[in-house]
Amino acid sequence: MTGYTSVIDVLGKLDEGEKARIRGWVYRLRRLGGKVFIVLRDYSGIIQCVLDGETASRLEEEVSRVDIEASVIVEGVVRRDKRAPGGKELKVMDLKVVGESHNFPIKGGEGIDYLLDNRHLWIRSRRLTSVFKVKHYLLEGLRDYFNSNGWWEVTPPILTMSAVEGGATLFPVDFFGKKAFLSQSAQFYLETLIFSLEKVWSITTSFRAERSRTRRHLYEYTHLEAEAAWYGMEDMMRVVEEMVKAGIRRVLEKSSGDLEFIGRDVSILENVVSTRFPVITYDEAVQILQSKGVSIKWGEDFGADEERVLTKEFEVPVFVTMFPKKIKSFYMKISEENPELVYGFDLLAPEGYGEIVGGSVREDSYDKLLSRIVEEGLNPEDYNWYLDLRRYGSVPHSGFGLGVERMVMWVAGLDHIRDATPYPRFRDRLYP
Amino acid sequence: MTGYTSVIDVLGKLDEGEKARIRGWVYRLRRLGGKVFIVLRDYSGIIQCVLDGETASRLEEEVSRVDIEASVIVEGVVRRDKRAPGGKELKVMDLKVVGESHNFPIKGGEGIDYLLDNRHLWIRSRRLTSVFKVKHYLLEGLRDYFNSNGWWEVTPPILTMSAVEGGATLFPVDFFGKKAFLSQSAQFYLETLIFSLEKVWSITTSFRAERSRTRRHLYEYTHLEAEAAWYGMEDMMRVVEEMVKAGIRRVLEKSSGDLEFIGRDVSILENVVSTRFPVITYDEAVQILQSKGVSIKWGEDFGADEERVLTKEFEVPVFVTMFPKKIKSFYMKISEENPELVYGFDLLAPEGYGEIVGGSVREDSYDKLLSRIVEEGLNPEDYNWYLDLRRYGSVPHSGFGLGVERMVMWVAGLDHIRDATPYPRFRDRLYP
Repeated sequence: MTGYTSVIDVLGKLDEGEKARIRGWVYRLRRLGGKVFIVLRDYSGIIQCVLDGETASRLEEEVSRVDIEASVIVEGVVRRDKRAPGGKELKVMDLKVVGESHNFPIKGGEGIDYLLDNRHLWIRSRRLTSVFKVKHYLLEGLRDYFNSNGWWEVTPPILTMSAVEGGATLFPVDFFGKKAFLSQSAQFYLETLIFSLEKVWSITTSFRAERSRTRRHLYEYTHLEAEAAWYGMEDMMRVVEEMVKAGIRRVLEKSSGDLEFIGRDVSILENVVSTRFPVITYDEAVQILQSKGVSIKWGEDFGADEERVLTKEFEVPVFVTMFPKKIKSFYMKISEENPELVYGFDLLAPEGYGEIVGGSVREDSYDKLLSRIVEEGLNPEDYNWYLDLRRYGSVPHSGFGLGVERMVMWVAGLDHIRDATPYPRFRDRLYP
Repeated sequence: MTGYTSVIDVLGKLDEGEKARIRGWVYRLRRLGGKVFIVLRDYSGIIQCVLDGETASRLEEEVSRVDIEASVIVEGVVRRDKRAPGGKELKVMDLKVVGESHNFPIKGGEGIDYLLDNRHLWIRSRRLTSVFKVKHYLLEGLRDYFNSNGWWEVTPPILTMSAVEGGATLFPVDFFGKKAFLSQSAQFYLETLIFSLEKVWSITTSFRAERSRTRRHLYEYTHLEAEAAWYGMEDMMRVVEEMVKAGIRRVLEKSSGDLEFIGRDVSILENVVSTRFPVITYDEAVQILQSKGVSIKWGEDFGADEERVLTKEFEVPVFVTMFPKKIKSFYMKISEENPELVYGFDLLAPEGYGEIVGGSVREDSYDKLLSRIVEEGLNPEDYNWYLDLRRYGSVPHSGFGLGVERMVMWVAGLDHIRDATPYPRFRDRLYP
């Protein structure tokens, strides 16, 4: 026989008595009274493959080479069996070991540092595989939202000389003796592109040398950013809500089995895509926090703790808007009604997960932007080309950034952001 | 009236006498005998807007503020006019300047360094805008190929401790006092992921500190990479050919107007998508080059010059396969028939453009890989986790990398790679 059948197709499409050839890795292995039970894993699932006593002894030499995580090819006949996972198993007629595996380093029960040292092997786990499938569909859904709605994908640089969010958390790069920095945000570059393409988006890697270790910060993360000419705050919040829902809808359509395997309650996400996201002001958020006994004063920023308390109140993401200007970046446009506030908006994921999107209207007046730069103690010369955008045909515009791993963390219901990406980077973690 | 109409819709959908409100930037400006002619540019195209003498004097104050690259809103009535670009113009009834623009720094005829210093303004050019639209559709088409054929998108890291292609062209990063490097390739990380997801792809930024300045090298570029378990060389070459054609097909469907604007002969690309890509061996390529008078000896690598001479012979991309092992990386699998050759394949774009894809079968034997590492004078300890992939359930596998800007350069027919990306990075170019 030629060709191979995936596990999902054996379980879903083949009937009792049909032949199949499958290839994959040994997930579980048990020898019992002359019989050999191999649970085989491929990209699509697991299936039990059974060698009866006669077959096991006929294939004795190959069988002796089988061990956990060995790669194998099995050929056999499909049998219905209520006790088997998936309701079917394969009665093995032939077995071939492709790559042996002895004493696979992950057996279960290891500590987190050991597992991260062996991340290149740990990522074979079915749980991480399910998370990565969720991420795949989430990215696909988010991109499709933009590409179906007239937005242009662009490719901003990562090596830069300028700091969007301030210099304290930048990684320096030795660029032929000159000092460059790894990008924290593509925002300024996206802003330059709205004067031709008008509505642009990008997915790039961003880098932040965070000072604190938390469950929800990566030093290197997947950053989806968007910027649009002529868009005000309401317009951009509508985009964010539609985009987040489009991403989750794709995950629910294509990957709900993965969510269930991870243990995520799918009904929570089904509710999210069919509910309007509530909008509260920063003022209201402070009042809610104070009423919960959190000691926060007006004008203070929300940390992880405040966001956790606040979002435990909500079942769907909530927008917080109109922040004090002193806790937000200089490029945010100041309110026309209250000069202490800016047209900024964050989207906080519910269930305690906190910020996944940060956005704002951008200051489009040259004079106001310049005075904000000076007010913040920054050097206007460093922002010369950014100021040019307000010198030549400035337009009202808005934008936002989404932390993709943050969103994966929430959508998949993870308790630590490290599992939202194959190779998480932290202060003490660069290997493998 | 509410809402705005894009230029493309005014030209394509509105009839003589219909009202329209458009917003955009002033592309050309001419005052003639009391009349004012504004060519207005938005993301979708350009349109001539005419103020007759009466309107121009009624709107005198706004008109006086209009200059090249100012942002404006115009309201008026559509008129057919054979002389106007697009066959229609707008008879302006009202005009509003949103953002002024005086003495726009790019007037035409400036040198390349000046233009690159003003890249944030230069990218408004219609030519660059067209190239970026081509790139948008190319990326969309390439991704759709993978997502429609069962491949999983993954997010490999950029900060690494290891060098895939050797250390000479690495950018070092100061990672809290430790030395990290910017990734040159995600290949090793993708290889770790095939043991669960089997067929994976990623688009990340890669970095190479090239020693030479050429028209076709960027120091930072968009890298599409793919890796698949159980795939041999023929399988992977088929993927490459299908993927390249899928990308070009999308560009032809959606962006042929942009190609024509750039001056690209679309029929060349139409021929590419309907022709099988020829395959020649390295040996044959050397013979062709020698017959053209190029002084290359067997065993030498192809540089830009050799690739140019070779691919001028072809109208469609050509695969070159079976390279001498000494000019290729240690991870490529050695031929079973000739131990001096590896199962490597490059895809060279025609018309002199040269390499856009490099791929190979990967060495899947632990012993052979280890001896290749030693043979190359590399330290096996640096490749410990990579070797693990051959220790535990190794499988035959193959992969490749595509330089997206290289492909854009060829598809759009550019004479320099800098215009394939908004902010190209070279040894002396980090700003803006």
